[in-house]
Amino acid sequence: MDLELTDEQRAFAQAARDYAEGELAPHAAHWDAEGIFPREAFARAGEMGFCAIYASEDIGGLGLPRLDATLVFEEMAAVDPSTTAFLTIHNMATWMVGKWGQPGLREAWGPLLASGQKLASYCLTEPGAGSDAASLSTRAQREGDDYIVNGAKAFISGGGDTDLLVVMARTGGEGAGGISAFAIPADSEGIGYGRKEEKMGWNSQSTRPITFENVRVPAANMLGQEGEGFKIAMKGLDGGRINIGTCSVGAAQGALDAARRYMDERRQFNRRLAEFQALQFKLADMATHLVAARQMVRLAACKLDAGAPDAATYCAMAKRFATDMGFQICLDAQQIHGGYGYLRDYPLERLVRDTRVHQILEGTNEIMRVIISRQLLEKGADIR
Amino acid sequence: MDLELTDEQRAFAQAARDYAEGELAPHAAHWDAEGIFPREAFARAGEMGFCAIYASEDIGGLGLPRLDATLVFEEMAAVDPSTTAFLTIHNMATWMVGKWGQPGLREAWGPLLASGQKLASYCLTEPGAGSDAASLSTRAQREGDDYIVNGAKAFISGGGDTDLLVVMARTGGEGAGGISAFAIPADSEGIGYGRKEEKMGWNSQSTRPITFENVRVPAANMLGQEGEGFKIAMKGLDGGRINIGTCSVGAAQGALDAARRYMDERRQFNRRLAEFQALQFKLADMATHLVAARQMVRLAACKLDAGAPDAATYCAMAKRFATDMGFQICLDAQQIHGGYGYLRDYPLERLVRDTRVHQILEGTNEIMRVIISRQLLEKGADIR
Amino acid sequence: MDLELTDEQRAFAQAARDYAEGELAPHAAHWDAEGIFPREAFARAGEMGFCAIYASEDIGGLGLPRLDATLVFEEMAAVDPSTTAFLTIHNMATWMVGKWGQPGLREAWGPLLASGQKLASYCLTEPGAGSDAASLSTRAQREGDDYIVNGAKAFISGGGDTDLLVVMARTGGEGAGGISAFAIPADSEGIGYGRKEEKMGWNSQSTRPITFENVRVPAANMLGQEGEGFKIAMKGLDGGRINIGTCSVGAAQGALDAARRYMDERRQFNRRLAEFQALQFKLADMATHLVAARQMVRLAACKLDAGAPDAATYCAMAKRFATDMGFQICLDAQQIHGGYGYLRDYPLERLVRDTRVHQILEGTNEIMRVIISRQLLEKGADIR
Amino acid sequence: MDLELTDEQRAFAQAARDYAEGELAPHAAHWDAEGIFPREAFARAGEMGFCAIYASEDIGGLGLPRLDATLVFEEMAAVDPSTTAFLTIHNMATWMVGKWGQPGLREAWGPLLASGQKLASYCLTEPGAGSDAASLSTRAQREGDDYIVNGAKAFISGGGDTDLLVVMARTGGEGAGGISAFAIPADSEGIGYGRKEEKMGWNSQSTRPITFENVRVPAANMLGQEGEGFKIAMKGLDGGRINIGTCSVGAAQGALDAARRYMDERRQFNRRLAEFQALQFKLADMATHLVAARQMVRLAACKLDAGAPDAATYCAMAKRFATDMGFQICLDAQQIHGGYGYLRDYPLERLVRDTRVHQILEGTNEIMRVIISRQLLEKGADIR
Repeated sequence: MDLELTDEQRAFAQAARDYAEGELAPHAAHWDAEGIFPREAFARAGEMGFCAIYASEDIGGLGLPRLDATLVFEEMAAVDPSTTAFLTIHNMATWMVGKWGQPGLREAWGPLLASGQKLASYCLTEPGAGSDAASLSTRAQREGDDYIVNGAKAFISGGGDTDLLVVMARTGGEGAGGISAFAIPADSEGIGYGRKEEKMGWNSQSTRPITFENVRVPAANMLGQEGEGFKIAMKGLDGGRINIGTCSVGAAQGALDAARRYMDERRQFNRRLAEFQALQFKLADMATHLVAARQMVRLAACKLDAGAPDAATYCAMAKRFATDMGFQICLDAQQIHGGYGYLRDYPLERLVRDTRVHQILEGTNEIMRVIISRQLLEKGADIR
Repeated sequence: MDLELTDEQRAFAQAARDYAEGELAPHAAHWDAEGIFPREAFARAGEMGFCAIYASEDIGGLGLPRLDATLVFEEMAAVDPSTTAFLTIHNMATWMVGKWGQPGLREAWGPLLASGQKLASYCLTEPGAGSDAASLSTRAQREGDDYIVNGAKAFISGGGDTDLLVVMARTGGEGAGGISAFAIPADSEGIGYGRKEEKMGWNSQSTRPITFENVRVPAANMLGQEGEGFKIAMKGLDGGRINIGTCSVGAAQGALDAARRYMDERRQFNRRLAEFQALQFKLADMATHLVAARQMVRLAACKLDAGAPDAATYCAMAKRFATDMGFQICLDAQQIHGGYGYLRDYPLERLVRDTRVHQILEGTNEIMRVIISRQLLEKGADIR
Repeated sequence: MDLELTDEQRAFAQAARDYAEGELAPHAAHWDAEGIFPREAFARAGEMGFCAIYASEDIGGLGLPRLDATLVFEEMAAVDPSTTAFLTIHNMATWMVGKWGQPGLREAWGPLLASGQKLASYCLTEPGAGSDAASLSTRAQREGDDYIVNGAKAFISGGGDTDLLVVMARTGGEGAGGISAFAIPADSEGIGYGRKEEKMGWNSQSTRPITFENVRVPAANMLGQEGEGFKIAMKGLDGGRINIGTCSVGAAQGALDAARRYMDERRQFNRRLAEFQALQFKLADMATHLVAARQMVRLAACKLDAGAPDAATYCAMAKRFATDMGFQICLDAQQIHGGYGYLRDYPLERLVRDTRVHQILEGTNEIMRVIISRQLLEKGADIR
Repeated sequence: MDLELTDEQRAFAQAARDYAEGELAPHAAHWDAEGIFPREAFARAGEMGFCAIYASEDIGGLGLPRLDATLVFEEMAAVDPSTTAFLTIHNMATWMVGKWGQPGLREAWGPLLASGQKLASYCLTEPGAGSDAASLSTRAQREGDDYIVNGAKAFISGGGDTDLLVVMARTGGEGAGGISAFAIPADSEGIGYGRKEEKMGWNSQSTRPITFENVRVPAANMLGQEGEGFKIAMKGLDGGRINIGTCSVGAAQGALDAARRYMDERRQFNRRLAEFQALQFKLADMATHLVAARQMVRLAACKLDAGAPDAATYCAMAKRFATDMGFQICLDAQQIHGGYGYLRDYPLERLVRDTRVHQILEGTNEIMRVIISRQLLEKGADIR
C-alpha cells in the first residue's frame, strides 16, 4: 500500500492547475452568469490531453488510469466545477467510443473527440426514467443496416452544443438486457433540441431535452454488442461517479482555500477571523472531511483501475460521500464569508450552486445507498 | 399554557395565505429571475395591513403581537421568502418609526409606511462592521437643528428602491453608547446608491451599498434619544430575528408541501415515491424539524410580546434553529425532486437559494451562538 | 396562545425539584451501580401525588393534565432518568386502571397504585413482537368468568418487583382488533419471572421477561371492552411517548447544567473552559436544542390534553425529536467534561447510558418515523 | 499510489483475526462485566508478536510499519476494543523503550515487554493537565546518578497492573522544553496506586491515578535526552492517535457485521429487517463512513511510516474522524438491534461504551481540531 502520488502525477496535476488558473478561473463567473458553453476552453483542454485522459491511445487518448484523471479534474473543479463536470462527461463518452466503438467509428470520431475539436454528450436519462434507468423507453428499431431511433431524453448536458450523442436505446425487450448503446451524430436528421433548461447552477453547461424522431443510425455506430448497452452505461457510470465525486472534492478544495484566505484577512471585533476558535474548528472539520472525501474517490479510482469485482460498490460510496461532504464544505466556506459569501462577486455561492447537483445526478445519493446496501445485504460484500 | 391558535389568528393566517396565493405565488419565480422589486405587491399587502402588523395603531398599524405577525409572514414565505423577508424589514422599520419617532415624523411618515405607499430600508451594516455592528463608523455630526451624516452602509435591502432609510450613525464616542438612530428620506441630497448587488437569491429585493456625503438630517428625525441607537437597533434585531426565522419556517412548509405532492405523483421502479421507506423517513424528519422550528419562533415571539427579560436569548435561539432547519428542509425537498429540483421550473431551488441567506444575516448564526452562550455563561441564564 | 407556565405549575415543578434533589440525587449513582429498585423513593413520590399525576381523582390521582406531568418528570429526570422513567410507566398503568378499569378493580387497586404503596408494570412487548406490537401472541382464553392467560412478555420494566401487571393479550383473531387488556396481580399463580436483564443503563429498574402459564384472571380485571386492548395500548403509548421524551429533556437539562458548571470551574491552558469559543458554541447549541425538545414535548402534551385528533402524530414527533436531542446533549456534556465525563464519579456517563434507551423503546425512533410519515402521506395530515 | 494490501499483510490480518476470535471474543463480555485485566491474553498476543509490532527488532519487536499494526489492532478491536486499546498503549510504550531507551534499559526490559511477559503503562496526563499536557507538574529532580520523582498522574491505563511506567516529568523550567521521559519500574518504592476508577467502559483495563513520592529513578532510565520528553510524548501520541482511531474502525466493523447479521435474521411485520429500506440506507451509510474512517487511519499511518513532515496533522485528522465515525456506527448498529442492543447479552452496548472514550482521550477531538486548524492557519499547511 502506498498513498503518495508519484512525481509524474504531481506534475500532471500541476499542469491541470496551471490550465485551470489560466483558462477557467478568469471566466468561470462570467460563463455562469451568462450561461456560456466555453468551447474554446474545451479545445484548449484537448491540446493538453484533458479531453481523453483515460481513453485509449489509439484514438488519441492518454490511456492513463482513472486515478490520474481525478488529479486533473480536481484541480479544474477547484475553480469551475460546472465546466469541469462537462469535461468529465466528454471524457466518459470519448472513452466509450474508444473502448466499445467499431473501427470505423473510432477512426472517424476518436481523434476529434480526444482533441476536443468535437464534443460529446451522454444520453441515458429520460423524463420518466431517472433513478430507474433500466426502464428507459427510447426505441432503436433495426431496419436493414440501420437502426431507427425514436424517443425522448432529458437533462442532457451539452445537449444542443455538442457534436456526438452517446445514446442508450431499447433494441430488445423490457429491462436492462434489452438496451443497446449508439453513437449518433448530433446533427442527424430527426433529432430535436428542446428549450435550454434554466438551472440553479451548472450554467456553463447547456442542458436540454432531446427528441429522436425516426433518426436513422448506421448499425456500425453501435457501441459494443446489441443488448450490451446497459452494461456499458453502468460501466460508464462507475467512472462517472468517481468523476462527479472528484468535482466535489475539487470545489471543496477551492472553497476551503478561499475560506482560509478570508479568515486571514477579514477582521471583526478587532481580530482576524482566523483567531476565533469556533471558526478554526469549522475549518479543521472542513479540511478533515475534504481529505476523507478525496481518499474515498482515490480508493474507488484504484479499484476501478484494478478491475476489482467490487469496484461499483466503492464508486457508489465515493460518489455519495464526496458529493455530500463537498457540498457541505462549500456551504461552510460560504458561511465563513458572511454576507460576502452570498454575493456573486465571490466564488462561494457559485461553488454551492454547482456542487448541489452532484448529490442528485449520476444516480442520486439515494440510489447510491440502494447500490451499497444491496451489495452488503444480498451479495454479502466484504468491505474489510 | 395554551399552544393553540385562536380562531381570529387562524382567519388572519388564512387571509395571508390567500394574499400569498393570489399576489405572490404567480410572480415569485419571475421576480426572482428578473430581479424585480414588486412595489405593487407591497402596496396590496399594505391594504391588508401587512405592512405594519405590529406597528402602533396611531400611525395606521394593526398593533398586533409579534406572534400574529409570524402567522402572516409564514404563509407568505411559503411561496416567496425573498419578497416576504423584505416585507418584514419594512414592518420593522415602520414599527421603529411608530415607537421611537417624534410626533412630526410619525405623522408625516407613519401612515405612508403603514399603508405600503412608501417603503423603508434598515441601514445598520457597514462594509467593515458586519457581525461587530457596534463598531460602525458612519458619523452624524450635530450642526444647529440638523445632523450632518457621512459614511457608508452595505447590504441594504431595498436600497435604491425605498423611500425612507432608518440609519444607525455615530453621534458620540466609540462603542454601542455612541450610536443614534435616524429616519432619513431616501432622496436626501448627498445620498448615493451603489451598484445593485448580484446575489445567490433574495432577488426580488434590490440590495445596494449606500453612501452618505454631508447628508443634512433634521434633529427631529432622530428616533429615540441621542445615544439610544444601538439599543433601538438591538430591539429591532430581536424582532428581526423572529421574522427571518419565520421566513425560513414558511419556506420550509412550502418545500415540504411540494415534496409531499411530488412523492404522491412521481413514480420510479413502478412505485410512487411515497412508497419508498427511506423517503418516507426523510419526510417525517422534515416535518418534525419544521414543527420544532415553528415552535421556537412562536416561543420567541411570545417572549418578546410579553417583554420577558430573556427575550433576546430566545430570539437568538429561534433564529439559529429555524434558519438552519428551514434551509435543510428546503434542501431535502429539493433532493426528493431529483433532477427536477435543480430546475427553475420548480420552486425548490429558489427556496434553497433564498433561505440560504437567512443563516447569514440579521446576525450570522455564529453570532447567535455568541449571544446565547454569553447569556448562559456570563449571565447565568436559566432556560428551564 | 400562551407559552408561559402558571405560578401553580411553577410551584408544582419546584416541588418535584425538591423531591428530586432530596430523594433521588443522593442515591441515583448507587442505585445504578447496584441495580437497586428504589421502592421507598416511589412511596415517597406517591405521598407527593407523583404516582398518579394524570390518573383520575376518584382513585386518588391528581387528575392533572399531561402538561403538568411533564413538569414533574422533567425535574426528576434531571437527576435520575432511570428511576423517573419507571415512575412514568407506573403513572401510565395507574391511569389505565383509573380510566378503563371496572369499579371493583378501581376500588381495590386504584388508591394503592395512586399512593405508590403498590407498583405496576406494563406488559405489551414480546420476544417476537417488538416494533410490530399488533402481532403479539400471548393468549387469553375465556373460561367461565375468567380468562386463562398463556404466553411470554419481554423487556418488562419493574418485572419481578411490581405488584400489578397491565397485560395485552389476544382474546380474538389476528391483528390489532383481537387484543384485550387485563390488570393481573403480579403474584398470580402461573406467572414466572425470568432472569433480570443486564443492561447498558436503566439499572434502577429491574427488567425481566415474564411467562404466563395458565394464569387465571377474573373477567372483571379486563380493562375496557374485549378487543379494545390495542386501542388502549396505543392511547397509553401516546402518553408514554411524551413521558419518555420528557425524561430525555430532563436528563439533558441536568447534563447541560453540569456542563455549564464544569466550564466555569475547569481550567486548561490558563483559562476557564468557559472562555473557549468552540465550547461556548457547543453549549449554545445544546441549550437551543434542549429548548426545542421541551417545546415539542409540551406541544404534544397540550395536543393530548385537548384530545386533538392529530395528537398521536405530535406525540411521535416529540418522542423522536426529544430523545435524539436529549441523548446528543448528554453526549456533548460528557465530552465537555473530558476524561472525567467517562468516570462514574460524575453523572454524565450515567445520563448517557440511561437516555440511550429512550431512542429505542416506547416504539423505536424508526417506528416514530413510520407513524409520522403515514399521517403525512396517507392521511394527508396538515401540520401547519 | 497503491491502495491494496499485500498478501503478507492480509495473512497478518488473518492471524490477528484468528487470535481475536480465539482469545478475545469468548471472554470480552466477561472481562468487561467483571473488570478483569487479561494478562494471559496479552501474553498470548506477545507470542504472536502483537506486543511489539512496530518496536525495533533488536528488542524482539517485529519492526513492522504502523500500517501493518493497524491491520492487527483493527481485527482485535472488532471483538474487544478495550483490551485492544490497552495493547496499543503497551505497543507504544515498548516502541519508546526500543527507540529512545539506553542500552541497559533496552536489554533489561525490551524483550520482556516485546514478548508480553511484562506490560507497560504510559503516564502523561495529570489531574490538572489533561488537554494542556505541556503544563504538567510532576517533577524529576537530579540527585547524583538518579532522579527523584514527585507528583501525581491520572487516568493511567493499566495502572496498578503493569510492570513498567513510561513517565513524563519536569526536569527543567516551564513549558514543553522542560520535560523529560523516564521508564520507571512500577514497583519502585514511593509509587502509590489510587482507587481503581469506575468507568463507563474500557473495563478490561484498570485505570488508576498514580502518585510519586520521592521515587528514585536511575538516570540510565531516561528515554532520550533531558528535555526531550515532550517531543517523545508527542511522537508517541501521533502513533497513539492512529492506534485509537484504528480501535474505533475495528469496533465499527464488528458492529456493522453484527447489524448485518441481525438484519438478515430478525423479522418484524412479516419481513426480515434487511428488507426495510430505511435500515438498508442506514447500513449503507455505516459502511461508507467505516471505509472512509479506515482510509483516514491508513493514510495517517503511511504518512507516519514515511516520516512525512505533516504526519501529525494527518494523525489528528484520522483520530478525530475515525473515533467520531466509529462511535456513530456503533450507535447505529445498536439502534438496529432495538431493545436487544441495550442488553449485555449482545456486544453492541459494550462497543458503544468502549468506543465513547476514544473521542475523549489521546487528545480530545477538540484538541485534534486545535492541532489541525493551527496547521492550516498558522503554518499554511497544504492538504492537497
